Amino acid sequence: MAEISLHRPFPASEVTGWDFETDVAVIGFGATGACAAIEAATAGAKVMLFERNSGSGGASGLSGGEIYIGGNGGTEVQRAAGFNDTTADFAAYLKAAGGPCADEAKCELYAEQALDHFAWLKAQGVPYRGNYLPGKHIEPTDDSTLIWSGSEAAAPFCNLSKPAPRGHVIQHMGWGGGRPLVDILEARARDLGVEVVVDARAVALVQDGKRIVGCVVRIDNADRFVKAAKGVVLATGGFVMNEEMRRKYCPDSFRVNSPIGDQDDGTGINLGVGAGGDAIHMDQFFTTCPWTMPEPQAQGVFVNVAGQRFINEDCYHGRVSRCAVDQPGGKVYLLLDSAHFDQPLEMAGITIAGTGDSWEEVEAELEMPQNTLAATMHFYNRHAAEGRDPLFDKKEPILVPLDQAPFVALELNFQTSYFSFFTLGGLKTSTDGEVLDRTGVPIAGLFAAGRCTSGLPAWGHGYSSGMSLADCTFFGRQAGRKAATQ
Amino acid sequence: MAEISLHRPFPASEVTGWDFETDVAVIGFGATGACAAIEAATAGAKVMLFERNSGSGGASGLSGGEIYIGGNGGTEVQRAAGFNDTTADFAAYLKAAGGPCADEAKCELYAEQALDHFAWLKAQGVPYRGNYLPGKHIEPTDDSTLIWSGSEAAAPFCNLSKPAPRGHVIQHMGWGGGRPLVDILEARARDLGVEVVVDARAVALVQDGKRIVGCVVRIDNADRFVKAAKGVVLATGGFVMNEEMRRKYCPDSFRVNSPIGDQDDGTGINLGVGAGGDAIHMDQFFTTCPWTMPEPQAQGVFVNVAGQRFINEDCYHGRVSRCAVDQPGGKVYLLLDSAHFDQPLEMAGITIAGTGDSWEEVEAELEMPQNTLAATMHFYNRHAAEGRDPLFDKKEPILVPLDQAPFVALELNFQTSYFSFFTLGGLKTSTDGEVLDRTGVPIAGLFAAGRCTSGLPAWGHGYSSGMSLADCTFFGRQAGRKAATQ
Repeated sequence: MAEISLHRPFPASEVTGWDFETDVAVIGFGATGACAAIEAATAGAKVMLFERNSGSGGASGLSGGEIYIGGNGGTEVQRAAGFNDTTADFAAYLKAAGGPCADEAKCELYAEQALDHFAWLKAQGVPYRGNYLPGKHIEPTDDSTLIWSGSEAAAPFCNLSKPAPRGHVIQHMGWGGGRPLVDILEARARDLGVEVVVDARAVALVQDGKRIVGCVVRIDNADRFVKAAKGVVLATGGFVMNEEMRRKYCPDSFRVNSPIGDQDDGTGINLGVGAGGDAIHMDQFFTTCPWTMPEPQAQGVFVNVAGQRFINEDCYHGRVSRCAVDQPGGKVYLLLDSAHFDQPLEMAGITIAGTGDSWEEVEAELEMPQNTLAATMHFYNRHAAEGRDPLFDKKEPILVPLDQAPFVALELNFQTSYFSFFTLGGLKTSTDGEVLDRTGVPIAGLFAAGRCTSGLPAWGHGYSSGMSLADCTFFGRQAGRKAATQ
Repeated sequence: MAEISLHRPFPASEVTGWDFETDVAVIGFGATGACAAIEAATAGAKVMLFERNSGSGGASGLSGGEIYIGGNGGTEVQRAAGFNDTTADFAAYLKAAGGPCADEAKCELYAEQALDHFAWLKAQGVPYRGNYLPGKHIEPTDDSTLIWSGSEAAAPFCNLSKPAPRGHVIQHMGWGGGRPLVDILEARARDLGVEVVVDARAVALVQDGKRIVGCVVRIDNADRFVKAAKGVVLATGGFVMNEEMRRKYCPDSFRVNSPIGDQDDGTGINLGVGAGGDAIHMDQFFTTCPWTMPEPQAQGVFVNVAGQRFINEDCYHGRVSRCAVDQPGGKVYLLLDSAHFDQPLEMAGITIAGTGDSWEEVEAELEMPQNTLAATMHFYNRHAAEGRDPLFDKKEPILVPLDQAPFVALELNFQTSYFSFFTLGGLKTSTDGEVLDRTGVPIAGLFAAGRCTSGLPAWGHGYSSGMSLADCTFFGRQAGRKAATQ
């Protein structure tokens, strides 16, 4: 008898009996799986959803519940705040943020349909207060809706596309809106008759000829066979929790050490590749250290261990952090003056590395050579006072002179500070969520979305908050709908 | 009938007749394939070698014929030049140069056996003059043997492992020693009875159950079936010539635009993955721009478009070039004074971007803000005069003040200068050259070596000249020997 393996589909001819029969089997109950299930059920399919944990959530449930939305003139929230966001601008930003070899078809389709997607989310019951919260925030600490959640207003992105805030956050007091987001989607899926089976871990796909016709799930340590007449949707997340996969496909992620995820061990990627799928951009990862909390610290300047700046610090915190992690020496310094220093968030693991009444004193305390950090700061301050950053084009209001003594250098250490990270590479899929083989042909009966695929957020240096949940929810829907109409 | 595909093995049960029968089929006739064939034949196997071109060569034939060798106290060439090179130092360098998640087992095995490998190469007829050529060279322009071909003497490598020159170049007047190297190996393979079939392109593997039992080659547009009783060795090179694969797996390589290779279209990687193999570190690529020719230019200083240095320029030219390509702005500048400027090699496509009687004048001519490039150079010169580089630890004799007016800034443009490059990612193999599946288990009957695998040269930022040919020849031999003893 054939082996039950993540890496090779089990032949349908050897299945002696089906334990479950459905039209569409969805694997994984984060936001991606929930959206896929809702759309498949809405399209009239019988849907079963299998989740290895004892309940829904996944990495989505750990998130802030923020979704990147714009285009077509803007959502009503954007428009009320005075932002006209064209589809062309939105698509251009998504492509730039997606990095080299971004999936342009996905960027374009999502830019065209994001407003409809927002309406759909609201129709599922996802609440939005509808207000705009200006400033630099990682997530709103109240229940506000619209925030700047990317590098839209920062160079080079602002030169490629007219800036607009696009992070739309579920109405939820404080952080952690991902959990209520998933709860709402779960309730909707259950209302539509989706049958949820928890404590059921996917361990294999089942193949008949070239077509995927089901999967094998392990429940109470027994392998159960699931027939999925129309298709299987993989929605199992990335591989940040799988160190062996990271060693093979994403070695640079070992520079940082705070993985965020749930059971993101690459199961869906392995199942998909084993069925002939193609895993792409596997070296890419998102990382961020919450250095803009409290907010005054957003005005700081970063230098590497050579005392050099390396980025316009008005970019999204994840882009700044990702570029920081490229710097040599295992750490970078965030420089602040007394007008902008505040005690960093404790969880950030950011320490005070040096202080002084002048930048020269800070430089000396860090044991940097004379005329490195201090020269950098004098150059920066002189131009900032004129409202210019000739080197990196940082812009006001984040661009301010740091000239109020005393001064401080905070250390962001890649290993001991909280550089949270997750992987962005995964299965190559069509805009309909079909898993493509290495020649670009859909694998019949196999669909995927979210972080087990490579989607909108394909480049660690360009990530913006809300891009992953946008990708998960929108392309999760695409996959569910396509599976149901096989 | 099953389809003939690079991406899925053809079932042996559907083969209606074998056109060729052999013990070991080697695919690709560069140095890797030649070495695999020699060892398999030496072990008593009947060997056929299939090459898609009309003759041997591959990317090896385009190379300098330089092989990275050391350890066990050093080769006789190293020892005669006064270098004692321990196995521990050699292995430590290989691991550091292999980057994060280097294949430590391959580094250790090669460090232990490289001297024997050198003896073997000589026994095949590869000639070495036996002398040491000091200085900074890309390849000897005479027929010298031993050169510094990596970053051994530069930080941080020199702090991890005692430096020694390890690039051993075939005796051959001028550049291009790769061609005679392959010729010698080809002659040896033919002497041993290896049957060479040219104009024969591999288009599929043949599988019986889980075992690879042969391959399909296309000759005169007809598919011919090859039975390989003991195994198939993939030796087809990387994927630098396959833009679609680069888009999916190595997007950053599009920053540069001078691929070097032969027919390196990823055939072996696709065949291997299609058979269940694992392709790893696929984002990695080597690149270099020949800026150290003529040699005085090795004393130059690199700055990015912000006027910042970014590397100790005494590193290997490929490491400096790879770090250059990480810089923003699509170009970097090489700064030289009149004591060190010489006309760059024409093929390098390096242009003069600015000149001046002071670094301030050069800075202004490049339209950089005041006190950027000039400040960098004053800082550099002041410390270089004291024999120190406090920022990047560049060392003498490469470290010299650049203070003899007039001054020049040469532009190395990633798109228009000659940044040659090739890919480093590929199949995961055991130290015996077995292709491993995604769980780490060898795929019976399938072997690979050279640039269709991920081997010693696994990290673009750490590559050293001769590492790829070392990997190709040594692990090519391992694969051939293992295949023959199945």
